[in-house]
Amino acid sequence: VKRGAQTREAILDHSLRLASEVGLEGLSIGRLAGALKLSKSGLFAHFGSKEALEVAVLDHAAERFTEVVVRPALGAPRGEARLRALFERWLAWPRALALPGGCLFVEAASALDDRPGVARERLATLERAWLDTIARVVRGAQEEGQLDPELDPDQLAFELHGAMLSWHHAARLLRDAAAEARARAALERLLASARPTASRAESPP
Amino acid sequence: VKRGAQTREAILDHSLRLASEVGLEGLSIGRLAGALKLSKSGLFAHFGSKEALEVAVLDHAAERFTEVVVRPALGAPRGEARLRALFERWLAWPRALALPGGCLFVEAASALDDRPGVARERLATLERAWLDTIARVVRGAQEEGQLDPELDPDQLAFELHGAMLSWHHAARLLRDAAAEARARAALERLLASARPTASRAESPP
Repeated sequence: VKRGAQTREAILDHSLRLASEVGLEGLSIGRLAGALKLSKSGLFAHFGSKEALEVAVLDHAAERFTEVVVRPALGAPRGEARLRALFERWLAWPRALALPGGCLFVEAASALDDRPGVARERLATLERAWLDTIARVVRGAQEEGQLDPELDPDQLAFELHGAMLSWHHAARLLRDAAAEARARAALERLLASARPTASRAESPP
Repeated sequence: VKRGAQTREAILDHSLRLASEVGLEGLSIGRLAGALKLSKSGLFAHFGSKEALEVAVLDHAAERFTEVVVRPALGAPRGEARLRALFERWLAWPRALALPGGCLFVEAASALDDRPGVARERLATLERAWLDTIARVVRGAQEEGQLDPELDPDQLAFELHGAMLSWHHAARLLRDAAAEARARAALERLLASARPTASRAESPP
């Protein structure tokens, strides 16, 4: 059983890296079997179907994401520090996991959004949970008095997510060396524009 | 020759709609031939290769985008009105062209970013031109005194592009009914945070 679990973990790690480049739809069981020197029937025994493999890779990516982004960020002090930690770790996670094609979730979103099925539903559930996590951390910063409590945390999460998506686009497609600096500048502008009204009025002109 | 040009246009319109759903990589010449009741050899005669077809579809999408988004927006008064027109027409363009899978450029970006070749380079060129267009319109609003002239127009273009990508994600993957309202709210917050410092200080608390 232990050996089986290790094999499964190795298959999923390899699949995650491969899928970051070729997309979930490029993950054929034949291709994986070749790369991992396993039989196709052995791979089928682990996952049962191509779609079950896709769902397993998404869940695996979400576990690794929680390990390297969410959990460490939750170790930062509640409020703005935690929001910054979440953002920095998000920027770093494709590097932390050596994902050659960047964030799997961004890659998967375009591919799955028009493909009804279990994989699409799982991805949507994971993405909603991620946006909820951002919104919760924003709410913490509002409760600490660092951000305007009148603002809608889901709106700020939508905008932060946009900065991340724009970073992915600039870094991956455009190979823009300024992409990371632009993402951080977007975060700073967003935070500055979301300060409590009193502290914005106090700030020097 | 005229008939050939009409056929080519019809092939490209059909390909654009199909690619918005299945991606450029899903555009097989066999599949198109079946859907358009043309011979594979006839299609090859028009485009020569799968990659040449992909480039032709990207160029076709860019022409339609210029027609329904950029050119009409340039008809709005220079400055903030033009920036708003650009944003609104961007939100509406998948509907205007009846693209069943949403914006082809967003779909193509994830698929092509790790696939070196002519199609990837063409998409990157088109996307840089689009970001330059946004930045130019932002600069117009700065010159009209509506936005802070100290801000970097490329940074604002990066952030506006992020709001658009976040909208695409929320609307297409999450089927979030609030997606369009969130995108507009993101534009409003961005404009408010980019006002010239004096007019921001004058605004009521």
